[in-house]
Formats: sequence, C-alpha cells, structure tokens
Amino acid sequence: MSRVADRCLVAGVGLIGGSLALAARERGLIGECVGFGRTRENLELARSRGIVDRIATGAAEAMAGVDLVLLATPVGSCAALASTFRPHARPGTILTDAGSVKATVVDGMEAAWTGVGPVVGAHPIAGSEASGAGAARADLFVGRRCILTPTARTDAAALRTLRRLWEGVGAIVEELSPATHDEILARVSHLPHVIAYALVRAAGAAQVDGRDVLAYAGSGFRDTTRIAASRAELWRDILMANGTAVGSAVREFCDALDAIASAVSAGDAATLDSLLGDAERRRRALGGAE
Amino acid sequence: MSRVADRCLVAGVGLIGGSLALAARERGLIGECVGFGRTRENLELARSRGIVDRIATGAAEAMAGVDLVLLATPVGSCAALASTFRPHARPGTILTDAGSVKATVVDGMEAAWTGVGPVVGAHPIAGSEASGAGAARADLFVGRRCILTPTARTDAAALRTLRRLWEGVGAIVEELSPATHDEILARVSHLPHVIAYALVRAAGAAQVDGRDVLAYAGSGFRDTTRIAASRAELWRDILMANGTAVGSAVREFCDALDAIASAVSAGDAATLDSLLGDAERRRRALGGAE
Repeated sequence: MSRVADRCLVAGVGLIGGSLALAARERGLIGECVGFGRTRENLELARSRGIVDRIATGAAEAMAGVDLVLLATPVGSCAALASTFRPHARPGTILTDAGSVKATVVDGMEAAWTGVGPVVGAHPIAGSEASGAGAARADLFVGRRCILTPTARTDAAALRTLRRLWEGVGAIVEELSPATHDEILARVSHLPHVIAYALVRAAGAAQVDGRDVLAYAGSGFRDTTRIAASRAELWRDILMANGTAVGSAVREFCDALDAIASAVSAGDAATLDSLLGDAERRRRALGGAE
Repeated sequence: MSRVADRCLVAGVGLIGGSLALAARERGLIGECVGFGRTRENLELARSRGIVDRIATGAAEAMAGVDLVLLATPVGSCAALASTFRPHARPGTILTDAGSVKATVVDGMEAAWTGVGPVVGAHPIAGSEASGAGAARADLFVGRRCILTPTARTDAAALRTLRRLWEGVGAIVEELSPATHDEILARVSHLPHVIAYALVRAAGAAQVDGRDVLAYAGSGFRDTTRIAASRAELWRDILMANGTAVGSAVREFCDALDAIASAVSAGDAATLDSLLGDAERRRRALGGAE
C-alpha cells in the first residue's frame, strides 16, 4: 500500500495511538513514526516494541518534518495540544484524532489548526479497559468500525487520506456528523461506562450485617462492571465533553430502569416478563453473549 | 467419598441442577439420579449426557425411593413443586434447592415440607447466561461459593449433609441467614441484572438520525449487558421473590448514578474525577477485569 504519511507524530502512545502506529507501519502506510507523551517510561516501552522510531520531548522536535499528527490523548487535551504543535507545523499538515467524543473535540481542533492544514475527526470503536503502549496490538482495528466525522470545513482529500489509513489497518470506515456520532456513542458507550462506575460505587459502599457485599460478586457483576476498570481520567474527559447527550442517555436509561423497578415493586409479573423478555431477545440478537 | 444420597431427584435439569448432578455422581456422592422437568427434549439430553439415570414423568414415579430432592427450577415454582412431591415423599427425605433468593423460597419450602423431612436452602454463586442440560458441566462449582441458609427450623444433620455435598463438588460453603443472603445478592447479582436488562431496553429503543444505535455497540456495551441474555423467566421470578431488597438496591444505585450525572451536568471535573477514580480503583481491586 502506498503511504498516507512519510512522518507521523503520535501524541499519546497508548492502546489506541500505539495500535494504530503499529498497524500502519506494519502495512507500510506510515514511514517514520515519532512518539510524544507525558510518561517517559511508556514512550521508552513504545520505542522498544517498535511502535515508534524515536521519542520527541518538545513541540518543535516533535513536529519537525511531520505531515500527519495523530492526537490519541484524553479528549480534554486535544485542542490544547494542537495549539502547542501549531507554531511548528509545516503548511498542509493533517491533524486528526481518535477520541470518543467528536463535536467539541473537532471544533477545538479546527479552531487551533486554522490556517495550518486540514483537520479530520476520527473515532475507532475498539479498545478496552487496558491502556498504555504495552497493550497496543497491530490487529486491534481489524473488522472494527471507525467513524470519520467530517464537517463543513473538512478537506475532501484529507478525508480520503484518513479513510485510506483506517481501511488500511482493517477498519470498516463510516462517516457521520460529529453530533450524530456523539448522540449514538452517548448511548452505546458513554452511558454504559457511567452505569458501570455507578454500580461499583453503589455495591462498593454497601455493607450487609457488617459484610462487604463486593466479596460476594460473581461473574455477572464482573462482566457488568468490567469497563469501570477503564482509566477515570479518560472517562472524565469524555463525559465532560459530551455532557448534554450523556445527560439525555442517562434519563432514557432511568426511565427503562424505573419501568422494571416499578413492575417489581407492584408485583406485576406479566409486565416484568414482557420487559425482561424483550431485553433478553434484543441482547441475544446482538450476539457475543456466550 | 461416602454417599449423601442413594437416590436423588433433580427437578429442573438445567445449568445448575445438571451440573450438580453431574459433579455429585462423578464423585460418588449420589447413587441414582432421577430427572424431572417440563421439557422432554432437555431431559432426554440430560439422560444421553449421563446427567440422570432415568426420567420420571409423574410425581409418584419421581419420588419413589428418593432420599434427597433438589429443586433447581425458577424460584417461583419451588414451593408448588414441593407440594406436588410431598404426598409421595418417604419420611425423612431432605428437600433442598439452588435458588438465587432464599427468604421467601425457604419459607415456602418449609411450609410445604412440614412433617415430611428436613429442608435446607442453598445457593451456589455460579452460573451464567447459558441454560439447559447442554450447558451443565461437572466443574461448574469448583472454587465457587455456595451459601447455605439455615433457619431456626433447619435440622443440623441435614445441614451437614448439604455441606458435604457442596464441598464434595468443590464449592466453598458459607452459612448466612436467608435475609442476609437476599440483601447481599440483591446488590451484587439481582441489581446488575435489572441494570443490564434496562440498558438493553433503553439503547434498543433509541434511534439517532434514523439509525439503530445498537448497531454501534462495541465490546464495552456487550460486556455490560451480557447477563441480559439470561432467561427472563428465571429473573422475573428472582426479582419478584426479592422485591424489597431489590428496590433498596436500585435506590442506592440511582443515588450513585445521580452523583455522577450531576457532576457531568455541572461540568465539575474534580468531583467527577474523584467519583470515577474511586470506582476504577475498587473495580481493579476486584480483579478479573483484564
């Protein structure tokens, strides 16, 4: 495959940034790869694993000769990082990200990158509660969806470049507006995280007869709360950046929860049967429950 | 190991009943095993897998020569089944169960079995969203907790017999009062099921720009809702039988959810960081998140 970038800067060489760098280099989509980040130890690990060729410590060194910048940091820091890199950017350098929230993040990147080059928002729906360069793997995006979120300002050629990059690493690329992306992800990703964190907090605080209830947690509890082991810092940023949609999603969930709780408290077996049966069928249809 | 029963009746030869029969017979804890249930096909499968020696179709045939009755059916039918078997029970026959709710279920079994023999409530904390005799496996209880719930009426010798049976199949046996069991399980098991069913219903009903949001569900959503693929009939019974404790658990969860949602809506990053960070640490400490 022909290259999409001769030299790529990856800011935040964690699970997502590291996996993309690894996959894109293996497939020859990216020439040199420069790593930038807060934690020296993680960057050294990334270099030793061949995820990045070298480590940059300042913005000028990071940006030298770069034609693609990938921000794979917590979403709250994307706009500020873009501003930091901007004075050292070559004209035409593409700026992209991999964040779980798009409207506010793309907005911030576009504002910071005005007059420099194209901006393309991207969100690969892949990942897990694992983090860091040690968790990166070249096959992370194979068969997974990657959503690109062009705006009225998005350059068509840069959008094609990003599509080629993500399709090149095995992702199924789809385009959505930033707002549509955020409303959807609020419901299938951000809300489940809020719920998992809340469930751990509620059960973690509960004592019955002086016993710690979490000691009795079985596989069901562990599955339901697995994503609460995700880094709080990332999810704080995501929830803050998509607050309105997350608020709506929480309210919809509370309505569904209330319907079930009301049927339980009313002792209404028929209604409960219908509510749970409908959810059981939908969940089985979704697959991956075995 | 010496036998705990010469002939055991298993009513409901599914994941739990089938696994216990399989494990207990392999270890010589039970002599003959008779299967009883609603679905002929499932019982035939149980016989062909060597889970039961034979299938009984009526209560008299089921109870002939039986010295241990295990009810492994939906909890709502335990008391009624005990009443059905009662006229055909030999004096001294032990009645036990494996249900996820204890207070109402043990109460019902004790009432139905008065004057017949000992009753011992039991709940192995094992299982999954899988069901039926095809899902049974002899190692299901190895290293898992099994809670026995004696009451003032429980016979000490029968309690020891049940302890020997469950320890014999590898479980770690603990005794709790039925009420304590129910308050704990409401929080670590019943509540997560309510949440998973509610989340599937909320996301399943949501459309954004004419798109079905469930089509965008990733591994986080799948983990969080895996137990919503559990049989609605079982969980309808469990929730109804433990309604008060489930109601309290739902309220505690809603408080925890509200604290997070309020911090998001207020844009209070510091509070959100602390709430999520606390949950992340607790969930990591619980293990099994990798």
